[in-house]
Amino acid sequence: MKEILMSDDIEKLIRNALREDIGTGDITTASTVSPSAVITGNYVMKDDGVVCGLDIVRRVFDAIGSDVEYTPKAADGDFVKRGDVIATVSGNAVAILSGERVGLNLLQHLSGIATCTRKAVEAVAGTKVRITETRKTTPGLRILEKYAVRIGGGASHRFGLSDGILIKDNHIVAAGGITAAINSARLRAPHTLKIEVETETLDQVREAVAAGADIIMLDNMDCPMMKEAVGIIAGRAITEASGNMGRRDLMEVAQTGVDVISIGALTHSVKALDISLKFTSLKN
Amino acid sequence: MKEILMSDDIEKLIRNALREDIGTGDITTASTVSPSAVITGNYVMKDDGVVCGLDIVRRVFDAIGSDVEYTPKAADGDFVKRGDVIATVSGNAVAILSGERVGLNLLQHLSGIATCTRKAVEAVAGTKVRITETRKTTPGLRILEKYAVRIGGGASHRFGLSDGILIKDNHIVAAGGITAAINSARLRAPHTLKIEVETETLDQVREAVAAGADIIMLDNMDCPMMKEAVGIIAGRAITEASGNMGRRDLMEVAQTGVDVISIGALTHSVKALDISLKFTSLKN
Amino acid sequence: MKEILMSDDIEKLIRNALREDIGTGDITTASTVSPSAVITGNYVMKDDGVVCGLDIVRRVFDAIGSDVEYTPKAADGDFVKRGDVIATVSGNAVAILSGERVGLNLLQHLSGIATCTRKAVEAVAGTKVRITETRKTTPGLRILEKYAVRIGGGASHRFGLSDGILIKDNHIVAAGGITAAINSARLRAPHTLKIEVETETLDQVREAVAAGADIIMLDNMDCPMMKEAVGIIAGRAITEASGNMGRRDLMEVAQTGVDVISIGALTHSVKALDISLKFTSLKN
Amino acid sequence: MKEILMSDDIEKLIRNALREDIGTGDITTASTVSPSAVITGNYVMKDDGVVCGLDIVRRVFDAIGSDVEYTPKAADGDFVKRGDVIATVSGNAVAILSGERVGLNLLQHLSGIATCTRKAVEAVAGTKVRITETRKTTPGLRILEKYAVRIGGGASHRFGLSDGILIKDNHIVAAGGITAAINSARLRAPHTLKIEVETETLDQVREAVAAGADIIMLDNMDCPMMKEAVGIIAGRAITEASGNMGRRDLMEVAQTGVDVISIGALTHSVKALDISLKFTSLKN
Amino acid sequence: MKEILMSDDIEKLIRNALREDIGTGDITTASTVSPSAVITGNYVMKDDGVVCGLDIVRRVFDAIGSDVEYTPKAADGDFVKRGDVIATVSGNAVAILSGERVGLNLLQHLSGIATCTRKAVEAVAGTKVRITETRKTTPGLRILEKYAVRIGGGASHRFGLSDGILIKDNHIVAAGGITAAINSARLRAPHTLKIEVETETLDQVREAVAAGADIIMLDNMDCPMMKEAVGIIAGRAITEASGNMGRRDLMEVAQTGVDVISIGALTHSVKALDISLKFTSLKN
Amino acid sequence: MKEILMSDDIEKLIRNALREDIGTGDITTASTVSPSAVITGNYVMKDDGVVCGLDIVRRVFDAIGSDVEYTPKAADGDFVKRGDVIATVSGNAVAILSGERVGLNLLQHLSGIATCTRKAVEAVAGTKVRITETRKTTPGLRILEKYAVRIGGGASHRFGLSDGILIKDNHIVAAGGITAAINSARLRAPHTLKIEVETETLDQVREAVAAGADIIMLDNMDCPMMKEAVGIIAGRAITEASGNMGRRDLMEVAQTGVDVISIGALTHSVKALDISLKFTSLKN
Repeated sequence: MKEILMSDDIEKLIRNALREDIGTGDITTASTVSPSAVITGNYVMKDDGVVCGLDIVRRVFDAIGSDVEYTPKAADGDFVKRGDVIATVSGNAVAILSGERVGLNLLQHLSGIATCTRKAVEAVAGTKVRITETRKTTPGLRILEKYAVRIGGGASHRFGLSDGILIKDNHIVAAGGITAAINSARLRAPHTLKIEVETETLDQVREAVAAGADIIMLDNMDCPMMKEAVGIIAGRAITEASGNMGRRDLMEVAQTGVDVISIGALTHSVKALDISLKFTSLKN
Repeated sequence: MKEILMSDDIEKLIRNALREDIGTGDITTASTVSPSAVITGNYVMKDDGVVCGLDIVRRVFDAIGSDVEYTPKAADGDFVKRGDVIATVSGNAVAILSGERVGLNLLQHLSGIATCTRKAVEAVAGTKVRITETRKTTPGLRILEKYAVRIGGGASHRFGLSDGILIKDNHIVAAGGITAAINSARLRAPHTLKIEVETETLDQVREAVAAGADIIMLDNMDCPMMKEAVGIIAGRAITEASGNMGRRDLMEVAQTGVDVISIGALTHSVKALDISLKFTSLKN
Repeated sequence: MKEILMSDDIEKLIRNALREDIGTGDITTASTVSPSAVITGNYVMKDDGVVCGLDIVRRVFDAIGSDVEYTPKAADGDFVKRGDVIATVSGNAVAILSGERVGLNLLQHLSGIATCTRKAVEAVAGTKVRITETRKTTPGLRILEKYAVRIGGGASHRFGLSDGILIKDNHIVAAGGITAAINSARLRAPHTLKIEVETETLDQVREAVAAGADIIMLDNMDCPMMKEAVGIIAGRAITEASGNMGRRDLMEVAQTGVDVISIGALTHSVKALDISLKFTSLKN
Repeated sequence: MKEILMSDDIEKLIRNALREDIGTGDITTASTVSPSAVITGNYVMKDDGVVCGLDIVRRVFDAIGSDVEYTPKAADGDFVKRGDVIATVSGNAVAILSGERVGLNLLQHLSGIATCTRKAVEAVAGTKVRITETRKTTPGLRILEKYAVRIGGGASHRFGLSDGILIKDNHIVAAGGITAAINSARLRAPHTLKIEVETETLDQVREAVAAGADIIMLDNMDCPMMKEAVGIIAGRAITEASGNMGRRDLMEVAQTGVDVISIGALTHSVKALDISLKFTSLKN
Repeated sequence: MKEILMSDDIEKLIRNALREDIGTGDITTASTVSPSAVITGNYVMKDDGVVCGLDIVRRVFDAIGSDVEYTPKAADGDFVKRGDVIATVSGNAVAILSGERVGLNLLQHLSGIATCTRKAVEAVAGTKVRITETRKTTPGLRILEKYAVRIGGGASHRFGLSDGILIKDNHIVAAGGITAAINSARLRAPHTLKIEVETETLDQVREAVAAGADIIMLDNMDCPMMKEAVGIIAGRAITEASGNMGRRDLMEVAQTGVDVISIGALTHSVKALDISLKFTSLKN
Repeated sequence: MKEILMSDDIEKLIRNALREDIGTGDITTASTVSPSAVITGNYVMKDDGVVCGLDIVRRVFDAIGSDVEYTPKAADGDFVKRGDVIATVSGNAVAILSGERVGLNLLQHLSGIATCTRKAVEAVAGTKVRITETRKTTPGLRILEKYAVRIGGGASHRFGLSDGILIKDNHIVAAGGITAAINSARLRAPHTLKIEVETETLDQVREAVAAGADIIMLDNMDCPMMKEAVGIIAGRAITEASGNMGRRDLMEVAQTGVDVISIGALTHSVKALDISLKFTSLKN
């Protein structure tokens, strides 16, 4: 988590999630458990997969602010199996029961993404292709979801609208053509960003190359067409395959020679990895 | 959306999502599209399913604050088909392009939940069973995800830890048994809340009934056992089937006679419904 | 305070109160006291009553963030007398002088509520009646005020509009009668909440019982009528006396047999308990 | 309200209060009232007193954001009688029922303060004395409570620690005496603020005058002593009587010749004025 | 302003600035001006320069929320002269007097930046050099300050640490050399960002070119050395001159053939342009 | 910094500045530096001047939350010379590189203000004149900028609109003259604030004295006129010279006998003091 350690947004996300779940207080625990009770438990895998978010769970307990000892037994990115204990927790029962669900919800969601990304990466093993997500992320969780993609072996695309230039059909229409759009972006946007253009036809590909695009997205093309596009581009720009890639044969796409495959489904259709917190002792 | 109209949290969620995506500004649009350009488009279904979140999309555009005319052509809860136009949008291109993705991300996610809930509800059609979600929701989106479940035909469980009493195994251990836990909750918790107890054995079921539980959760029981539990309870408490219900035959569960089936997968493993914003004209 | 320890809202409330009082800085202290001065003092009772909020005072000093040693000499709920020292404080003078008033304002207010609640609870001693507050709380302080009521020996009613169902006259009119309103609520609201109905006549009481209300509020009834209502209900629902209970003879009300008396005055007309911070030494 | 119209803090206070009460949604109304129902009602006095906060109620409805027509029939500062209608409201029932209690809670609290202040002002009628509050206000509500004091005919003391200099015993000890403290404050604090010193003895009064204090607080003095102090000061500083003034005979205090009487009880021990919202029609 | 219209951060910045200046209320205006007074005034230039921030002033008045008619008579980027009226304002006096200073402070600051940038751009007129700012901006104002640079004719560098790769000496040391650092960044950072490397010697320049850097910063080099570096690079990377450029002869730097000159002084040493709001009428 | 230690606003300002600069993460460092790398460096002066903000730099690192050892080698207010090391830092490289620029931007800005203030104070050395800033501060930074003025040897004027009364021409017109305005303010504003009036003619000065103004601002007067005004006032009010004082000969102004000179340029036209963080070692 070190790489995203500095973001204040993660702190807010966690506090917001805790507030959402705890509301004005955990009534069940308050009315049945002693404030000084101590509880111990194990985070146990109930599915096989790539674990992701172990440090987030710690931060959830930190945000609650009571003494809770949380010890990961695995590292983000480890492939773990059903039955494996990936972390232990021990401390004040009221605090642990209050933070349990928020931590698990994040852990299961991020591990689901990492696991799915790992499968995509393995599907193109042996090629040079880079697997990335898109902007089709869960509102409010993008920074974590992109982290999970990297943990799964993927790479990050631009974070959002302000840190990358991606000229789509509307921008092309508005600017008066691909060449005009690229020139306009080159003139007005920071010199630190590459210029990516979305193309749907080979003629568009040709125009994009000629206009000096840095990255060319091949959108919703079948594999033969994609291969032809890659040939036209001939290394003069990075090539990115996109469009329902979650439903495509990734190795077939990779073999067209593209550099990047971006997959929306990695983050918009997440299947949570089943992880459970099993308590082993409780002392009043 | 009227029912959740008042929540300031939805406003914050939308603003947060916009900030996440827009960052310090949409560089591509700023460098290729005229500030006065006008764009028109249709929200088109690319899958069949139950649409949910049409008003959220409007609120996204409202939050951006420019003049955007957004007109739903369907209502939340409608079952729509691939190719259907469910809304139109027209107005300032910079504003629409800036809000497009956030609106779609929410619309696709909520429609995915509503569609999945509808399937679960249809699976128990003809029975009296109520389908509900759990607290296994996406952090930050619970209020919307529970709304989507209701739109899909489900019912809501407690929102979080502060508006319902659910006595689990740890509470039972801490309180010194089911009877003690129920008595303790009855004494200390608001008289306005029902008391629910999680049970895993028939003996626990018997003790819960005897202690006056209002709701008895039958956790991870197979169907014959569940049926026996329902017989023991004999209408003296509401019965709720729970535990991996996303992987069970819901009709078989319903036929045990339980009142409620709560399904975590409705919200923890969402498959986004594919919806696209197709632009039809752009004028500088 | 353990029971409400987890609420981020209390942190915000305290920071907000400090900002309100300190503004851009304590000018008097900054211009007359050395930044390294150390001060010691005692929190002394100037009235008799039930103390409440001792831990809040600690959290005020924690929020300021300097080294302040604060030691309660009593516990929330203790009945203390004029002259008693209930806590001591020692540490950086600038920090203590900056947080002094906010801590005292909260302590005096909450102790006022706890003291008043204790009196109400004692007024019905020997009966089974439960004393509760209402939603007539001070805006922004509800979570603390309800805590003070519990510390005074009272019980909590629903926290707000989202964690309890209370059908009032308008809901009855809107739904088309008590029976329709109860049926509608049972159908649409979470199965985890009891349904409470407000009644003003014995006919309404009869209809509420017949429709299966879980709790029946007897609003602004005189005692004979209340007694008759309790007889009609005959244990089939919880009974709650309400309406200007702050001006009623609570024992007389209790003797009608009601289960709960809810009193708005506990929180809407608070008389602060007089508590003072007397400094005993100051060293530059 | 014009005078405090600009404060963003009031907006936050209202939104916070609404969030506190509404939580995740008004379940009763959502399950019994049609989203399009229209309701009409009158704000009716159930006590006599000075009304204060009529515009705050409007801002509560504005914050909810639905179409609600709210029309005051009185103005802040009017003395109204039991039975008087002070405002009417009409509009969407869901919105009005959601905002009803927050508006009333503020209106009753502020009217309670204004009424109590009016009594204090009337108690010193015919003298030149100015009645003010202190910093013993309800955390989070100070800006509104001070407004209510002014509406009741009182004047404002400093708002908090940053906009006034009030040298108390600890500051005197820290600075090494009254003269040193005044000199230090004159040297270091903004030249735009008057310097006030708290005194408990006539010797302190003499030293404060000699050192050039602008305002001298006479703390917890009996009336003969206070009169002597006023004589010593002889118009060379403003005089302020303070210390449990809520329990004193204010006219007797006024007749000592002091300029200002500051009363903590105006805001720390508020008795809400009873005001009710009576609905007159509801249409689905 | 259209290009940064969507940023919620500007709204927060304005509200924060208003809160900072207004505090708990404008006491002078409240005690001397009628709440219904109407005032009219002109924004008049007292220096010559490039105006910037006219729309921000409107947003300040919008944030206050009262009826204020504000009409720009110039556009951002116009060069205006001492005595020119650049905007007029008319409306509620309390509102206008409350927002006057915050609006002017922003307008003068941004116009100062735009004017200074214009001078830098004119200093290199006739060359192809692009003038940019750096990250040495005023904390909290970066989005506006970068806007002012563009209005002055400059271009934007990366916004901050997350939208551009700039490998400095420490990154080089950490990675084990320029080549290793560039390779590491190419492997791990998004493919959408160019890679910039800071160099201080010609050997570093040669290594950066060979490793495929997209942008090469020539840091604190004298002009002959810079010219040599440009020759070595020979168009294979964008060249950026940096380091105390605010004190250099910009034309001399430009004539070395560099593509970009980045100047910290544009934003870290701003001289406000003198602009005044002269009131022309006030009616009670 | 002790004197402004308590302000929560500084914490927010720092967090906001960090979020502004770091965005979604420092990509360069994340892709080239090991998460466990340790770095050491010195803060070195590159200009001569008065250092201010050393503790703010510590708070920036505290806000990031990792282990960073930061040791000032000078104190705020020290006059330091080019080449002096004013602080050292050592610790986690990712944390230090992430917070480096925000800390430096604040340090350079505040030191620039302190240095400029010192020059103004020295320009009037030997007179009794007090140098102050105005409300022409950088939006969001006022509390820090006023602190820097004090560190430079200046004094603070009122903080904003709520803690001082300054009657300007519009207030005079609105109230119907200087006398009326002063009387109105005396009647309605807190008795704890002095009343300041802005004057532009000697007649206005005479009227202000007669009406009992506590402070008289002499706005944009030449020195002979100012001297005459001081003679008219004759010690009956504090005198303050104002209006483009940044461009005036301050000693000449001081010799007119005024008590205070307020200078907008101290904060509206800041020249950052050049300070650099030179790293001395980095270990992976």
